[in-house]
Amino acid sequence: MSKYTIGIDYGTQSGRAVIINIATGEQVGQSVTPYPDCVIDKKLPNTDILLEDDWALQNPDDYLYVLETAVPSAIQKAGINKDDIIGIGIDFTACTMMPVTEDGKVMCQLEAYKENPHAWVKLWKHHAAQDEADQLNAIAKERGEEFLKRYGGKISSEWLIPKIWQILDEAPEIYEAADCFMEATDWITMQLTGNPVRNSCTAGYKAIWSKEDGYPDQSFFKALDTRLENLVDEKLKGEVKPIGSKAGNLCKEMANKMGLNQGIAIAVGNVDAHVSAPAVQVVEPGKMLMIMGTSTCDILLGEEEKIVNGMCGVVEDGAVAGYFAYEAGQSAVGDIFEWFVTNCVPKSYQDEAKERKIDIHQLLEEKASLLSPGESGLLALDWWNGNRSVLVDTNLTGMFLGMTLLTKPEEMYRALIEGTAFGKRMIIETFRESGVPVNELYACGGLPEKKQHAYADLCGYNQYGN
Amino acid sequence: MSKYTIGIDYGTQSGRAVIINIATGEQVGQSVTPYPDCVIDKKLPNTDILLEDDWALQNPDDYLYVLETAVPSAIQKAGINKDDIIGIGIDFTACTMMPVTEDGKVMCQLEAYKENPHAWVKLWKHHAAQDEADQLNAIAKERGEEFLKRYGGKISSEWLIPKIWQILDEAPEIYEAADCFMEATDWITMQLTGNPVRNSCTAGYKAIWSKEDGYPDQSFFKALDTRLENLVDEKLKGEVKPIGSKAGNLCKEMANKMGLNQGIAIAVGNVDAHVSAPAVQVVEPGKMLMIMGTSTCDILLGEEEKIVNGMCGVVEDGAVAGYFAYEAGQSAVGDIFEWFVTNCVPKSYQDEAKERKIDIHQLLEEKASLLSPGESGLLALDWWNGNRSVLVDTNLTGMFLGMTLLTKPEEMYRALIEGTAFGKRMIIETFRESGVPVNELYACGGLPEKKQHAYADLCGYNQYGN
Repeated sequence: MSKYTIGIDYGTQSGRAVIINIATGEQVGQSVTPYPDCVIDKKLPNTDILLEDDWALQNPDDYLYVLETAVPSAIQKAGINKDDIIGIGIDFTACTMMPVTEDGKVMCQLEAYKENPHAWVKLWKHHAAQDEADQLNAIAKERGEEFLKRYGGKISSEWLIPKIWQILDEAPEIYEAADCFMEATDWITMQLTGNPVRNSCTAGYKAIWSKEDGYPDQSFFKALDTRLENLVDEKLKGEVKPIGSKAGNLCKEMANKMGLNQGIAIAVGNVDAHVSAPAVQVVEPGKMLMIMGTSTCDILLGEEEKIVNGMCGVVEDGAVAGYFAYEAGQSAVGDIFEWFVTNCVPKSYQDEAKERKIDIHQLLEEKASLLSPGESGLLALDWWNGNRSVLVDTNLTGMFLGMTLLTKPEEMYRALIEGTAFGKRMIIETFRESGVPVNELYACGGLPEKKQHAYADLCGYNQYGN
Repeated sequence: MSKYTIGIDYGTQSGRAVIINIATGEQVGQSVTPYPDCVIDKKLPNTDILLEDDWALQNPDDYLYVLETAVPSAIQKAGINKDDIIGIGIDFTACTMMPVTEDGKVMCQLEAYKENPHAWVKLWKHHAAQDEADQLNAIAKERGEEFLKRYGGKISSEWLIPKIWQILDEAPEIYEAADCFMEATDWITMQLTGNPVRNSCTAGYKAIWSKEDGYPDQSFFKALDTRLENLVDEKLKGEVKPIGSKAGNLCKEMANKMGLNQGIAIAVGNVDAHVSAPAVQVVEPGKMLMIMGTSTCDILLGEEEKIVNGMCGVVEDGAVAGYFAYEAGQSAVGDIFEWFVTNCVPKSYQDEAKERKIDIHQLLEEKASLLSPGESGLLALDWWNGNRSVLVDTNLTGMFLGMTLLTKPEEMYRALIEGTAFGKRMIIETFRESGVPVNELYACGGLPEKKQHAYADLCGYNQYGN
């Protein structure tokens, strides 16, 4: 009899459950549940409480709703018996964090706090903690904190400590009342198991934790703000366990809600990008996985911890146990092509695509593929959404150089393919120059295969896996 | 009884005749005749003889056809009596030139030469004499020729001497057999009057002639090519007369063909851009006329001959008798906006313009006008067709800098308006720094008024005439 596991992918707008045959890897069922409150960036649900710019919250009830709807639906579609399901693994956007009470609730789930925006889940793209991030970086630099090297020199405003510090600054009563702060992926595994276990991946990439050194010193947190002195002991409790290990067993209450058997294994949580590495067999040093969608995230395994300027972070056991996982990324790739077809493609091209019943991207890729590299003389810099790696500057903006009266849309489109590919090449060369080998490229994600091929070509690789 | 004159404007694709009441300035009739052979840039008409890249020829029969069709048609539309028409003035593209026989025919009109491309009219935008222009500039610079200063330091491949030299290089038999080389505007006045009179405007701007110094020395032409030593005496015969003066009287044969009275006055020819200056009352120093269409030509009157880097030329009596007329220009303006709407405007905008029954440019201007200067952070360099003034470099290409995922088509359109306006400002500032005052801007041409206003604003002028 076949055995199955359930994977649950918590994205920005929905959660997806898939059922996998563990012997064959075959996906036998899946179901998607959109979050009812989706991304909360204008006002708190069912209130008139407005949010400031750069805020992005979520409703934890939506995450539980995914468990109760997508999982039973996927099982039903798979047509399998629940007795054959032996475990569940979660991945989640990160850093997506929340203040949690002693009995495991997100504070916004309590009547007393539901009208305080800081009681809600702060989504990864909540960008309102930039002031705190700037201060943190200045202080860390001044103190010569060694941990900065593991993050290419800068801690992002998207990460855990700046987000917690923002709560302390703007809603000290929430900070005070919270039992702890958690990553959403750890909170979900805690809902399933009852155990407050943290995973090494988000702890490493988002919470300035490392297997060797743990969290930063108490003196560092005190230097940020005296009220943060005991942050680690008081608000970050819970063991950090390596990814791939077991967080606990499914509790009775959740088993009933999900239509599963009590006691099956629950893996420690993980980050949506990083789970892709073992999935495409990037399990050895020298292999880089490019997860290419609206933006790209690059995961590279290495045997040593090296300093790489402008990377997002390096974490021991961050993607595959036993190796250092380096992360880098481009802040816009698919988004740039979407921008282009929305804003820069003339009616005649739209008409041609419609007539030929092909996607506009397909049409532009086809026309662009007829051009030789550099033929048009057009160059693009892919900084439409700033530059994450290796310049780490959100204020940078994009460029087209070399337009003439004969310049065609497919030439601009090709320049964007080349520009984003050279952005990738810059990342790869920076890793190499820093002593981290990059021998093979692997690609996955929503970006069409043709563009993924262009990336391999322009970065000087003959082979890649998909 | 009112009296009238006829103006004939020879453009790149057609000739237009207008009938003007000389007392009131009112235009009482007009007619346009497209050239049957238009621009000849692929192969010679009625042959299989292919032309090389960068060639652009015309058929002189088309020019005569304009006289015989547009003029009678305009008179008929005006409903006036031919006895009340007292004169004709011509303007023409320049340098548009041809080899002419002793009896006044263009050599391609003869059976013996009609299959030789060099026997045809070379249109202003014939760009195949770049090698000759490069050599000429190098030799002139080496010899320290003073005339270079009058042309901002460089002679263009579009002008008369490089074009003649190309004929000598590639078809010496045509050079040898030609009685002389003429500007098309002078050739047309010669057809009308029988007199081989050259005009001071094309001679000055296109043939390296000046009122004070005449043509360059014989020794200069010998230095170019010993076969050119006697070019001026042998192939450029014909008196150079100031514009605004009389070339002669209408001959009987042409009078009959055009439906006019023999003997009416024919003005010396002129250049299409330069005739605009008196037409919009730019007749005093310090006034600059911007003739804004697909490209722009700027005419500025001054009281002294100054050296201005990167201008196209300065000619005494070049536009208005008694003053030095400076010419500068931008090699693409309207062309860039046409490129933009053809290549970069999405279907949704085209649909909106169609629904509102307005032109796509009108829609974009409207949306762009709602933006504050610099609001989008987007910058454009207007070098889509190189830069004529003040960089004099046809190899330069255009740029957009500052794109983000939120950049909209109207922001790019506005950046192009601002970019072309700053190109204009660069020209104005260069004139000023060179000691040539620019006190008022005047605009004319096909570019919409809103854009012309933007030019005045961005160049720091409150007033302008139109």
